Amino acid sequence: MTGAAGFIGSNLVDRLLARGEPVVGYDNFSTGQGRFLETALRNPGFGLIRGDVLDLDALRCAMQGAETVYHLAANADVRFGADHPRRDLEQNAIATWNVLEAMRLNGIGQMAFASTGSIYGEAPVIPTPEDCPFPNQTSLYGASKLAAEGLIAAYGETFGMRASIFRFVSILGERYSHGHVFDFYRQLLEHPDSLRVLGNGHQKKSYLYVQDCVDAIFCAMNADAEKVTVLNLGTDEYCEVNDSIGWICGRLGMQPRLEYTGGDRGWIGDNPFIFLDCKRMRSLGWAPKYSIRESVVKTVEYLVENRWLLESRG
Amino acid sequence: MTGAAGFIGSNLVDRLLARGEPVVGYDNFSTGQGRFLETALRNPGFGLIRGDVLDLDALRCAMQGAETVYHLAANADVRFGADHPRRDLEQNAIATWNVLEAMRLNGIGQMAFASTGSIYGEAPVIPTPEDCPFPNQTSLYGASKLAAEGLIAAYGETFGMRASIFRFVSILGERYSHGHVFDFYRQLLEHPDSLRVLGNGHQKKSYLYVQDCVDAIFCAMNADAEKVTVLNLGTDEYCEVNDSIGWICGRLGMQPRLEYTGGDRGWIGDNPFIFLDCKRMRSLGWAPKYSIRESVVKTVEYLVENRWLLESRG
Repeated sequence: MTGAAGFIGSNLVDRLLARGEPVVGYDNFSTGQGRFLETALRNPGFGLIRGDVLDLDALRCAMQGAETVYHLAANADVRFGADHPRRDLEQNAIATWNVLEAMRLNGIGQMAFASTGSIYGEAPVIPTPEDCPFPNQTSLYGASKLAAEGLIAAYGETFGMRASIFRFVSILGERYSHGHVFDFYRQLLEHPDSLRVLGNGHQKKSYLYVQDCVDAIFCAMNADAEKVTVLNLGTDEYCEVNDSIGWICGRLGMQPRLEYTGGDRGWIGDNPFIFLDCKRMRSLGWAPKYSIRESVVKTVEYLVENRWLLESRG
Repeated sequence: MTGAAGFIGSNLVDRLLARGEPVVGYDNFSTGQGRFLETALRNPGFGLIRGDVLDLDALRCAMQGAETVYHLAANADVRFGADHPRRDLEQNAIATWNVLEAMRLNGIGQMAFASTGSIYGEAPVIPTPEDCPFPNQTSLYGASKLAAEGLIAAYGETFGMRASIFRFVSILGERYSHGHVFDFYRQLLEHPDSLRVLGNGHQKKSYLYVQDCVDAIFCAMNADAEKVTVLNLGTDEYCEVNDSIGWICGRLGMQPRLEYTGGDRGWIGDNPFIFLDCKRMRSLGWAPKYSIRESVVKTVEYLVENRWLLESRG
C-alpha cells in the first residue's frame, strides 16, 4: 500500500491487518505520520518500507510478492496547485504510472486507487454519476487524478490488470489531518472569537466517514468486477460550509465571529457544489453508517484529542 | 510550434507563413522531417529550433516573444503503447505540462493543442459529441492525451490561459507518414500480390484531409472562445478499413489477395468504430472540402511521389 502512513491509508492498513491480511506499507513520510502506524507496527503481518513513489525501482522491489496494490499516496492538496504546478503532475500522475509499471514488472493483477470527485470539475449533472458528461478540469489536482485514472484504465486494458477506481468525496474521521475541519479548528485554537471562511460559506460539499470509506473499498474489491471499475464514494447528502461550521463550533462550545472572504468559491478551482451519485457503489450492498454531521463531530473530537497533529503539520 | 517538422505541424507552418504570420518551429526530429520544412526555411518569417519537449528550459527560451503556442509534438503512435509504456506518458502528458509551464513562465496566454478522438475509448454514443459520457481509456495513447487535455484545462482555469483543444480523427494528406495508408502502401511495394490486414477489415474509422484540418484550426482560433474550448474535428462520414483498401488498390491499379488477421480489433486497444460528432466545429462556420475517399486517394498519390518517405521511416 502506497501512502500507508497517511490518513486513509493507515486506517485501511489497520482494517486489513484486523482481517488477517498481511500488508506491506510504502510511504515517504512527507505528509504521512509514523504515529498513525503504531498499532500496525506491533502486528507481525505488517512491513513498512520508507520510499518515494517517484522511485520506480524501490517501488518494484517493495511490491515483490504482493497480490493487490492499494495506491493511496498522492498530493491530496486541492487548493494550492497554482503555487507549485508540477507537484500534482509528479505526485499523482507520474507516481501512478510508476505504481502501474512496478505492478506490471511484478505481474500483479489487481489494484485499488484513491481518486476524487474533483475530476468532475463543475459537473452539469448533480448528483453526479460516474458516466456524467465528459468534464472539463478546473484544478491541477483534479487534472492529475484524471490523468492517473486514464493510465490505470489503459494499463488494465493493455496488460490485463483489474482495477477499482474510487472517486472519493472529502473523507473525515480519525487521523484526518488536512482540510476545512482541520483549518477551522486550528484557527479557533489561535483566536477563538473569529473564524475566517473562504468564499461565502454557501459552498455545498459532501463528506464521508473514513471507516465507511474502508467498508466500501472492501465491498468493491470483493465484488466480481469488470477489468476497470469506477465507483463514486460518498453519502447521499451534502452540507453547506456554514452547516459544518455550526457543527464544529457547537461541539467546541464556541461562537466565533464569521468573516467571509466572499464569492461563491473559496479559491481558484474551488467547486461550489460537490455531490456524487453513489448508486453504483450502493448496488454492491454497501451503505454508509455515519451522516456528514456525525463525521464532522467525530473529526473534531479526534483533533481535540490529538493536538500533536496540528503542531506536526506546521 | 512544437512538432513543427511533423505531418500536421509542417502543413500548419506553411499556412501560417502564407498568411504572413511569423513562426518559430520547435522539433527534435525524432519523427519530424527536415524536408517538410524546405519551403518554410526559405521564408524570413520562419525560425527553427532543434529541441526536445522534455527540455523545459529549452522550451522556455524558444517561446520567448510568442503570442500563441501550437502544441503538436506528440508520440502519435496509437498501436505500440504496450511495447514502450512510458513513451506516451513522457511524450504526451509530461511534454504538455512542460509546454504549459514554459507558456506560464513567458506569460503566453493562448494555445492550440492536437488531441485525439482516441480519448473517447469505445464510446457508447456514436457519432460521439465532445460532452459524451465520461469515457474509459482503452489505450495508453488515449490516456496520455486525456492527461494532457486535463492539464491544459486546469492551467487555463488556474492561470487564465485560453486554449483550443482539437480532438482529431486520423488525418490524411500531403506529408502523411504514419498510419494505415502508409502501412498498406509499403506492404504493396514489397509484395504487390498480398496485403495483410489487422482485424477483419470491418473496423469503421473517420479521416480528415490535412488542409481541412488546418482550416478548422484557423477558424476556431479566430472565434471568440471561452477559456478552454474542446472541438471534435472530422468529416461527417466514416468508412470501413475495407473501403479504404479498395480506394488505395484502385488508385494503384493493384488487386492483392487480402489476408485478415481476424477479430473486430486490429490490436489491443484498437477501437472498432470511431465517428465523431463535429457539430460544434461546424457551428463556427467550418466545413471540410474533401471526402474521406478523396483524402485517401490524395494520400496515396503523395506517397507514390515521395517514396523517400517510406525509406526514411525504416
